Amino acid sequence: MSPELQIDHHGRLRHLLTLEGLSRELLTEILDTAEDLEKALRGPEKNVPLLRGRTIMNLFFEPSTRTRTTFELAAKRLSADVLNLQMSSSSTSKGETLFDTLKTLESMQADMFVVRHEASGAAHFFAQHAAPGVAILNAGDGRHAHPTQGLLDLFTIRRYKPGFEKLRVAIVGDVLHSRVARSDIHGLRTMGAAEIRVVAPPTLVPAGIEQMGVTVCHNIDDGLDGIDVVILLRLQKERMLGAFLPSMSEFHRDFGLTRQRLARLHPEAIVMHPGPINRGVEIEGDVAYGPQSLILQQVNHGIAVRMAVMAMILGQTDPAPRSGKRRLRRRA
Amino acid sequence: MSPELQIDHHGRLRHLLTLEGLSRELLTEILDTAEDLEKALRGPEKNVPLLRGRTIMNLFFEPSTRTRTTFELAAKRLSADVLNLQMSSSSTSKGETLFDTLKTLESMQADMFVVRHEASGAAHFFAQHAAPGVAILNAGDGRHAHPTQGLLDLFTIRRYKPGFEKLRVAIVGDVLHSRVARSDIHGLRTMGAAEIRVVAPPTLVPAGIEQMGVTVCHNIDDGLDGIDVVILLRLQKERMLGAFLPSMSEFHRDFGLTRQRLARLHPEAIVMHPGPINRGVEIEGDVAYGPQSLILQQVNHGIAVRMAVMAMILGQTDPAPRSGKRRLRRRA
Amino acid sequence: MSPELQIDHHGRLRHLLTLEGLSRELLTEILDTAEDLEKALRGPEKNVPLLRGRTIMNLFFEPSTRTRTTFELAAKRLSADVLNLQMSSSSTSKGETLFDTLKTLESMQADMFVVRHEASGAAHFFAQHAAPGVAILNAGDGRHAHPTQGLLDLFTIRRYKPGFEKLRVAIVGDVLHSRVARSDIHGLRTMGAAEIRVVAPPTLVPAGIEQMGVTVCHNIDDGLDGIDVVILLRLQKERMLGAFLPSMSEFHRDFGLTRQRLARLHPEAIVMHPGPINRGVEIEGDVAYGPQSLILQQVNHGIAVRMAVMAMILGQTDPAPRSGKRRLRRRA
Repeated sequence: MSPELQIDHHGRLRHLLTLEGLSRELLTEILDTAEDLEKALRGPEKNVPLLRGRTIMNLFFEPSTRTRTTFELAAKRLSADVLNLQMSSSSTSKGETLFDTLKTLESMQADMFVVRHEASGAAHFFAQHAAPGVAILNAGDGRHAHPTQGLLDLFTIRRYKPGFEKLRVAIVGDVLHSRVARSDIHGLRTMGAAEIRVVAPPTLVPAGIEQMGVTVCHNIDDGLDGIDVVILLRLQKERMLGAFLPSMSEFHRDFGLTRQRLARLHPEAIVMHPGPINRGVEIEGDVAYGPQSLILQQVNHGIAVRMAVMAMILGQTDPAPRSGKRRLRRRA
Repeated sequence: MSPELQIDHHGRLRHLLTLEGLSRELLTEILDTAEDLEKALRGPEKNVPLLRGRTIMNLFFEPSTRTRTTFELAAKRLSADVLNLQMSSSSTSKGETLFDTLKTLESMQADMFVVRHEASGAAHFFAQHAAPGVAILNAGDGRHAHPTQGLLDLFTIRRYKPGFEKLRVAIVGDVLHSRVARSDIHGLRTMGAAEIRVVAPPTLVPAGIEQMGVTVCHNIDDGLDGIDVVILLRLQKERMLGAFLPSMSEFHRDFGLTRQRLARLHPEAIVMHPGPINRGVEIEGDVAYGPQSLILQQVNHGIAVRMAVMAMILGQTDPAPRSGKRRLRRRA
Repeated sequence: MSPELQIDHHGRLRHLLTLEGLSRELLTEILDTAEDLEKALRGPEKNVPLLRGRTIMNLFFEPSTRTRTTFELAAKRLSADVLNLQMSSSSTSKGETLFDTLKTLESMQADMFVVRHEASGAAHFFAQHAAPGVAILNAGDGRHAHPTQGLLDLFTIRRYKPGFEKLRVAIVGDVLHSRVARSDIHGLRTMGAAEIRVVAPPTLVPAGIEQMGVTVCHNIDDGLDGIDVVILLRLQKERMLGAFLPSMSEFHRDFGLTRQRLARLHPEAIVMHPGPINRGVEIEGDVAYGPQSLILQQVNHGIAVRMAVMAMILGQTDPAPRSGKRRLRRRA
């Protein structure tokens, strides 16, 4: 898939499909914009009029109330009109049907589609075929990418552990099926993280992942040694069966983040998880709500980060100046 | 459950979980605020900007298009941003999962959650664990409480039959499973109703209900004798089976409000029902749409009452003054 | 069904249930209003404040994400408050339950209901029983009518092939089950189309359709001879079984619009389809996206046409002048 699809000839964000191939400057600009928007949200008036009159459609082919809500909220905070379309993936699995769906909804003059689909590459497919002026924001496609999750993870790490080049990060759990892991790895590498370690049983590590610039470790105690940031992944219980894991409790015993294991980390190490957590599987409840956990902050940062992406993409495609409307100032 | 949970140390409404324990002054303030808002709604501009920039999430673990719509509409009339989250109750039945759901959604900076759940106590659970500044509005929890229905019933009674201390009220039907009945009883007692009579077959009256200050009557003709207000309850047909009732038609014969039975009431007696009605079970269609019925007025009053509760709770938690924004004047 | 139900005593649109019986003047006014609104949408600010403070409820008893979205978008572009209610048709199939649903939702002070129902006549039923000031917009009822689709088809034809009185139109496919075909036929006849030809296998043509002023043709090559406008209908595959059609591929062979068949038409003939298309059944993909196809334009025009209908109906029922609000200018 061509990462240049998401950048226009001025180097600006056109779609957001994956963090792969985005420059450190652009990632930094997104994070900085999110910081600005987050400050604005703290004021008495939560909504900013940046995208008034713009239409954003949430196209969810995979149901996810929680993720859909974060995008809906981000769009509302920007004063955009937002429509939720729960799509049946069964009737739109073939490429040409996806194409027809895109063209039909485009004709309703939507400015942006936030797309979640269980097929890897679905967001790219939309972006390849989208009309000029129509933006695609990938909200998760198969095992491929979940770029806004990757960005909110970077945002959270930067806020609590500034200086990526000094950081050692462990990504623990089902890397094989995880689009979050892939987006985190791309983002962390671009930001210059000192080390990225993937910690999982052999059945849950994709072959050749070392080529993404990570080290692999099949033992959690070795895996967490000297680590500053622990990113746990959600185990999709329904996927695990016998093929990948003997049982949930064995996974917890071997790879779960317990208080005991946490105690061996640096006391300023931070714990993250994309949610929703499986208590007693990836993580103990006490750890999830303990002082080193940033799980809820991640959720919170997700709103500002998604606002930033929406505002940067749509702020740039806006053809006509509108009076009385604040515009995002762009940094060079 | 602690009723003081819903009142802050200034005696103001913080959450609305149940009418139990709320003072007559506070109930009266809610009803008066609803009257003011209802007048405002009659003007050319239906929406008031009281909650602009505030975020209200409807968390419905039990599906109910109708009730959800009344809360959605109330929030929109107040210019709040409202998001509908249809939650699966199967995956969130355990307390700790509910906790995780609350904490996650709280992190999205919602100001209020309107919660409906089939488990009694779910709204209390949320209120106990909610962060400061996050309000819980109970939209019905199991058999326990449905306080906004209780309030709109009080509003309707007060408008058509002023002077609670003179009123004799009959609550007819499936009291056992009814959160509406419980909220009505608490509200009516606090407002000083002269008599509250529960009229139902023995299988549908909870043991010990007399301790709530009501009299029990198993015969509808005795039960309606001298009554000013009849509140019918909805029979949940799917719950009734053989255990509670022999058949729907027997219930109608013995406890249904027919024209014949209505004719024996005072001609100014009023008939109420929380809806949706089961024609030919609790009530005859002619009675439901007859001159003594206030069933549709109840629905209408529900909007203003829910607006009042939302505005009183969120108007008080607002930390910062906002220019150009009308604020609810508080009565002492 | 009485077409006069939808016109008030000043000759103005009160509900929109069917195109049958509407005058050419009124249809022209709707199309002209849609033209005006479409121009307004092209400006930098997509939303117009015509229906600010008005409440529109989408009552969909038949699920249809796509159609519901067009109505939701039209309402939002007019600045109305719009609520989506996905209704279960199983629990509301009886007339009296429909009546109760209408009265309940009316009591929430909705100004307009957009109704889709699988029963022919459902929208009429609502209009017959609606309170004064409450408008019904039929979004498709059974096989009966889909008037906004008919209007957007007229709008599209008028824009690309002005002068109805010169036009020969072929409607191809499953006319038997099609509310779109019925609405198109009524609209085209009223606008004075030179010829309307129905082209379908005998099993898919309703008995007596010639009384609607159309000619019937069971062979597509004869049917398309000399035609200016081809309107294809969607084949509901699940309905077709053995009773109506031997197979999808036979239908395509005998009635599908292929490049080959298209080549025999006048090069300025246009191709339309209400969507979503079944590629390889009614139409080849290359034809659907070819230069003579207006399928996506139809979708686009649907927004402006639905806005026009909403604005004309609700602009007229507005009792009170509202300062600072633009109003639709009415043409005599």
